[in-house]
Amino acid sequence: MPVPQELIGKRVEVLDRGWIELQDMMGDDLAIVNAARVSFLGESKGPERDKKLLFYLLQHRHTSPFEQVEFKFRVRAPLVTWWQWVRHRTFHYQSVNAQSGRYTPFQDDDFYAPQAWRAQARTNKQASAGTVSAQEAAELDALLQEHYAQSYALYRQALERGVARELARLFLPAFALYYTWIVKVDALNLMHFLQLRLSREAQYEIRVYARAIYEEFFRSALPWTAEAFERFMLRAE
Amino acid sequence: MPVPQELIGKRVEVLDRGWIELQDMMGDDLAIVNAARVSFLGESKGPERDKKLLFYLLQHRHTSPFEQVEFKFRVRAPLVTWWQWVRHRTFHYQSVNAQSGRYTPFQDDDFYAPQAWRAQARTNKQASAGTVSAQEAAELDALLQEHYAQSYALYRQALERGVARELARLFLPAFALYYTWIVKVDALNLMHFLQLRLSREAQYEIRVYARAIYEEFFRSALPWTAEAFERFMLRAE
Amino acid sequence: MPVPQELIGKRVEVLDRGWIELQDMMGDDLAIVNAARVSFLGESKGPERDKKLLFYLLQHRHTSPFEQVEFKFRVRAPLVTWWQWVRHRTFHYQSVNAQSGRYTPFQDDDFYAPQAWRAQARTNKQASAGTVSAQEAAELDALLQEHYAQSYALYRQALERGVARELARLFLPAFALYYTWIVKVDALNLMHFLQLRLSREAQYEIRVYARAIYEEFFRSALPWTAEAFERFMLRAE
Amino acid sequence: MPVPQELIGKRVEVLDRGWIELQDMMGDDLAIVNAARVSFLGESKGPERDKKLLFYLLQHRHTSPFEQVEFKFRVRAPLVTWWQWVRHRTFHYQSVNAQSGRYTPFQDDDFYAPQAWRAQARTNKQASAGTVSAQEAAELDALLQEHYAQSYALYRQALERGVARELARLFLPAFALYYTWIVKVDALNLMHFLQLRLSREAQYEIRVYARAIYEEFFRSALPWTAEAFERFMLRAE
Repeated sequence: MPVPQELIGKRVEVLDRGWIELQDMMGDDLAIVNAARVSFLGESKGPERDKKLLFYLLQHRHTSPFEQVEFKFRVRAPLVTWWQWVRHRTFHYQSVNAQSGRYTPFQDDDFYAPQAWRAQARTNKQASAGTVSAQEAAELDALLQEHYAQSYALYRQALERGVARELARLFLPAFALYYTWIVKVDALNLMHFLQLRLSREAQYEIRVYARAIYEEFFRSALPWTAEAFERFMLRAE
Repeated sequence: MPVPQELIGKRVEVLDRGWIELQDMMGDDLAIVNAARVSFLGESKGPERDKKLLFYLLQHRHTSPFEQVEFKFRVRAPLVTWWQWVRHRTFHYQSVNAQSGRYTPFQDDDFYAPQAWRAQARTNKQASAGTVSAQEAAELDALLQEHYAQSYALYRQALERGVARELARLFLPAFALYYTWIVKVDALNLMHFLQLRLSREAQYEIRVYARAIYEEFFRSALPWTAEAFERFMLRAE
Repeated sequence: MPVPQELIGKRVEVLDRGWIELQDMMGDDLAIVNAARVSFLGESKGPERDKKLLFYLLQHRHTSPFEQVEFKFRVRAPLVTWWQWVRHRTFHYQSVNAQSGRYTPFQDDDFYAPQAWRAQARTNKQASAGTVSAQEAAELDALLQEHYAQSYALYRQALERGVARELARLFLPAFALYYTWIVKVDALNLMHFLQLRLSREAQYEIRVYARAIYEEFFRSALPWTAEAFERFMLRAE
Repeated sequence: MPVPQELIGKRVEVLDRGWIELQDMMGDDLAIVNAARVSFLGESKGPERDKKLLFYLLQHRHTSPFEQVEFKFRVRAPLVTWWQWVRHRTFHYQSVNAQSGRYTPFQDDDFYAPQAWRAQARTNKQASAGTVSAQEAAELDALLQEHYAQSYALYRQALERGVARELARLFLPAFALYYTWIVKVDALNLMHFLQLRLSREAQYEIRVYARAIYEEFFRSALPWTAEAFERFMLRAE
């Protein structure tokens, strides 16, 4: 049950211009089981008993064996997504100078535009519910594109007047800016992230990244852990 | 040498609409010395020997005693500042729902405007050097204010059309948005932050916060540690 | 509802020669509430609503506000206790050279002797259940004291032959050796420790320290948090 | 320059009954370089420029790219070694129930005996220097073996009287007990460990583990990083 090699380097599209790519990985379900196994001989006791032990571990919160597995992703996401992601301090983040906005200028195709205009929820002050009308949506799309173009033109104008890149970016609609980062995290802390960000209460722009990580990578790489996660961490909430 | 009580609650203005306030603190120079002292009796051996021991500790990188002191600040800063700050994963961040932009709408006085328009450095791709001409600056000021007003009007318009707050904020010049957070950090990790962010290479918008923390709080609260920091961590770079 | 000042410096005896002392503390129940409060004005909304918010936070695992409170203890405990304690990597540990066993020799009153000889549980391979007979206990007490004396004599003999302290300690019954350390931890991670170590499955020699921390310090310092902890973290297990 | 596959699973003997084995690894020198590279295209710019960039990173303390590489070792070492190792809180430790001393009894071949009896240093209170005479050493060897046998007999006797394993171990010379753990750490934090533990001031019983890690694994797996480490972290001390 080694890491499926076809997962390494696999890229999944997310949002209009974003993506997630698994750069590297260390460990699998069996590595978790063996880290916890009494006999410690490192060999399988047969899939049935191995899986049962893994379920036992997660159910009874013997979580440290799950820290033995590491994921390393390359992620392109808008700042509105990263702004929530970075609160998870157990990830290691590696930003890229090229896209810091200080080193090289942003490009005009670096902006995120939503596919649907979600409406403000009435009952939950910090959530969305449904979408605005098609008519409204079309008008908002046009307004947004025009605003992005205008903001970007002002940004370029400031650069041409000699303003430092780090300052000219004040003109930009920064929540929409795409950044590419490398993030590294162990399986336990990734599950904490997923538990929070797969939830319906999570903002759509981060939920789709959580979903892509879970469905396109985590579930294939750690099938038993995924099953245990769904039973003991997702539903328990 | 207890924590100077006049520091607790003290607020210092930073940038045009920001500030830093020391909410609470635990420990002082003597707490660091005692954490390291062999006799461990917790009492001073006289200022001279105490100070000498503290200097010895920092010089020889016996850094764990410096983790015994904690600072808790309330900080209001624009996103361009936080965007760099959050990379320091050893801080504990506590954001405030009220200002998440998801819970309540932003106000039109929540935007940062620079006092000077720094020019792009020629030699260092990611730095600024000097400022643009007074004439240029005046024009840029006007452009920025107009752009902020226009962006904010679009944001309000989107809200009125029923768009969720979490999505309407795509119209905002987000780097300029002020957020108020609580940050907690121990003295050792605060020194790592200061070492990096007091540097001339740090962007102005975070350097002024680092400077305020250092000059208005750190130096008064931990005078010996500050002296040792300047000798062994600042100059050594 | 500030930190009860009589708690700072209070010392509680644990086991035959150990103790816990609260050296310092930062924050209280209200600091947790205010860290999370939307209005963020930092003032109480009345005890009833404050307490209700705090309960809501813990129940729904909005745990970061609980990281805002810090405890700093001085603890004297035998190695058998520390050996389990140090697995909790979220504590900051500050050992004391004086007692490292490398710097100064151990004393002959540095050994832990149990008050009761717990018997091996039959059903749970790694637990104890009940005690051995009074007759057996008396004999074991004598054997242990004699063994400690003999081991210590060999240790002193090795030192006198010029053996390095760091090596001579191989002769010592090290699990019984008392060490005094400073530990610092935030309230959230302290609750994770307590959840695990207050449990009946925890070894007695660490459970009594957890209990002392909880009953003699935590409950007085953070009465609402303690109530919420019992409801949502202890019983949920 | 991928991870040399012959390193995975390789085991190196350390001390009389201990060893280190590389269980798994993620990343190599090039992964570090690419994490930092501006172009971020993930491909080599030729060994010369790649290596130069890596050296630049470590010299100027741009250390986060070094966190992208992970090592996972299985280590068998006596408690006297672990007792120092566990202070490095950036390692992830995975103990093994089988050897906790609570789950199964210790065996009589689980004890460490030194090959040489190092003498106490006169100038440095916490170090050793030279060895005792051959005559003394022979006598100490005999004393130690006899003491181990006697201690172990008392331990077995306590177990036979029904004492819980977790308590009977008070009779054991615990510093000598071998434990097998899995430790996981990133390359940056491993270098901090090595910097401290390769030093002549480190106790022999941990220095030999640091040396084995460095010479048998680290240097082969990350040759450029090792070279930079020697230049900027080892000698700088």
